[in-house]
Amino acid sequence: MRLHTRVAGVRPEAQKVVLASGENIPFDFLVMATGAAPRLPNVPGLDNEGIFTLRNLADAFRIKRFIHERRARRAVAVGAGFVSLEMCEAFRGLGLETTVLESEARPVMRLPEDFSAKIVEELQANGVSFMSRVKVEGFDRSPGGIVIRTGNGTLEADLVLIAIGVVPEVKLAAEAGIALGRTGAIAVNDHQQTNVSFAYAAGDCCEACHRVSGTQVYIPLGDTANKQGRVAGANIGGQDVTFPGILGSQCFKVFGLEVASTGLNEEEARKAGLAAASATIQGVSRAHSYPGTKRLWLRLVADNESGRFLGAQAVGGEGVVARINILAGALAGGLSLEEVAYLDLAYAPPFSGSWDPIHIAAQQLLK
Amino acid sequence: MRLHTRVAGVRPEAQKVVLASGENIPFDFLVMATGAAPRLPNVPGLDNEGIFTLRNLADAFRIKRFIHERRARRAVAVGAGFVSLEMCEAFRGLGLETTVLESEARPVMRLPEDFSAKIVEELQANGVSFMSRVKVEGFDRSPGGIVIRTGNGTLEADLVLIAIGVVPEVKLAAEAGIALGRTGAIAVNDHQQTNVSFAYAAGDCCEACHRVSGTQVYIPLGDTANKQGRVAGANIGGQDVTFPGILGSQCFKVFGLEVASTGLNEEEARKAGLAAASATIQGVSRAHSYPGTKRLWLRLVADNESGRFLGAQAVGGEGVVARINILAGALAGGLSLEEVAYLDLAYAPPFSGSWDPIHIAAQQLLK
Repeated sequence: MRLHTRVAGVRPEAQKVVLASGENIPFDFLVMATGAAPRLPNVPGLDNEGIFTLRNLADAFRIKRFIHERRARRAVAVGAGFVSLEMCEAFRGLGLETTVLESEARPVMRLPEDFSAKIVEELQANGVSFMSRVKVEGFDRSPGGIVIRTGNGTLEADLVLIAIGVVPEVKLAAEAGIALGRTGAIAVNDHQQTNVSFAYAAGDCCEACHRVSGTQVYIPLGDTANKQGRVAGANIGGQDVTFPGILGSQCFKVFGLEVASTGLNEEEARKAGLAAASATIQGVSRAHSYPGTKRLWLRLVADNESGRFLGAQAVGGEGVVARINILAGALAGGLSLEEVAYLDLAYAPPFSGSWDPIHIAAQQLLK
Repeated sequence: MRLHTRVAGVRPEAQKVVLASGENIPFDFLVMATGAAPRLPNVPGLDNEGIFTLRNLADAFRIKRFIHERRARRAVAVGAGFVSLEMCEAFRGLGLETTVLESEARPVMRLPEDFSAKIVEELQANGVSFMSRVKVEGFDRSPGGIVIRTGNGTLEADLVLIAIGVVPEVKLAAEAGIALGRTGAIAVNDHQQTNVSFAYAAGDCCEACHRVSGTQVYIPLGDTANKQGRVAGANIGGQDVTFPGILGSQCFKVFGLEVASTGLNEEEARKAGLAAASATIQGVSRAHSYPGTKRLWLRLVADNESGRFLGAQAVGGEGVVARINILAGALAGGLSLEEVAYLDLAYAPPFSGSWDPIHIAAQQLLK
């Protein structure tokens, strides 16, 4: 294991990695695990002190130290995906005034509009300001902190977090002739093998096959990276292990709200050429009569023609991730909507009604 | 809707129901929804005051009233299934000394032995005495309350709950020539239709097809009853709706412990002629580092020959039912153990580690 070692290039034809020091390291197998880098807006002033991105634990410690040492009081998060929203909770926990700036109309655009509205409500209920359709145009240093210039005027903050997504780190791979896919990430087969037979890739630098749409997608997530790494390692080690692909399952928690999804949303299903239909229900996390039961909203998407269940999105106070993961299990098995409507789930009042929100939503959509 | 009306018999050949009053009621379709009755031990003294069974809300109110009016202080539950254990929590909540008597070696015999031990620990930690291998031989009235005679001596209580299971109410059906299955419950096809074409059955009086073993089983549960009723009604109404069968999913909560299972346990799988293997892991409900994470134990069962995932059992402080229901989704789709090991679940630290206990258990069993 060589830490703090920079790779300058890969020479597949010679089966060698060239270090920045000039040293050549021979290999039988190569694993590209170069990850992803935070996407940055193309605006001036990004190098001002107090502007951060968040990719790893070291970034988190840097932000925390900055807050304490500079006695930061005002945080602005640029972007409204899960990294930004989770950080808003942390900022509020440290007592910072917190504002989210989003260039789109609402947070987490993959969600139905009314689900995004629940997130905005939750942010506001917890003292986070949320501004949509605000384009950041640049950053300046001011005596009081950082001035954020936007298409709608200026804002001042002590700390800015830029969290508008990530881009795969593919420079080394591309220069070495390892093929990229249409998403721009490294293309791999179901053994995590690239077009160069002895070169594998795993994690946030590579694509994955979406089991519902059947297309190669770039949805970089930590749990997927772990699985891909295991599959690459097993195959290099001589086993024959297939990565079955992903379902696009993801979740996060923002204050008291769980947000989760799996499979395709209605728009994605249409783009995949499917006759998508959807239904949304409001349900409760436990039996109606059970103490502490909380409201949740669940949308199911299915193929009108084949009857196949395609995906689900949900938000709510509790039990949201649990439902989405049940539906991930259902998606993996290719269940029809009718099968979902009669799925035999373990039932007791502390955990659900005798008709779970999943059944109710599926029955609703079957109509 | 005619309440408080007793049916004396069914005459399928005449398509008439005969009431106890002698009145005949003609029908085009018949639904047998006679439910189940508490199983009773074949011992003397069951008619003593203070001995209860629990099937419905009225029973619960009767028990509660008895406790208050007689100032009951000592409860004994006979049997250690989920009804008994849930009631123990209620008894303790009302401040009663509570003892469970079980004739078998441990509670919830379907569970692995070490999982039953967790239940006993949880009962004892909450002040419930648990005695196994104790056979109840009869009940007597004493000046102080009820004397319970057992093979191991006597116990005194103010209140006894008998909860040793249920038997399907099939007398009317059997007398009418409606066929029973091998389990003793009414036999139905996947449209909830009995052998008499215009007679349907739903709920605790009838069998269901177990999707994993492919056999007809008697596992009477409220959520299954609801689904079967809906299927029967839809088919009578002219639709063509299939009940896909059950997976044997069930759960309950006893104090701070969740207990759940789906599919087959190892012994059931062997009895179904499958080459069953199992692995048990100890995991945690959320990410290791996340505040409030709790321990859970998960056992997976798979077919050694086909690699098919067959069932799971789990106990723990949190997240147990959530995992079992994900695995119910996986069972419904007929996933292989390898697919379960790489199932794409929504991951965030408040909800699981990046490798969920499901993945860890499946990887363990794959070895």
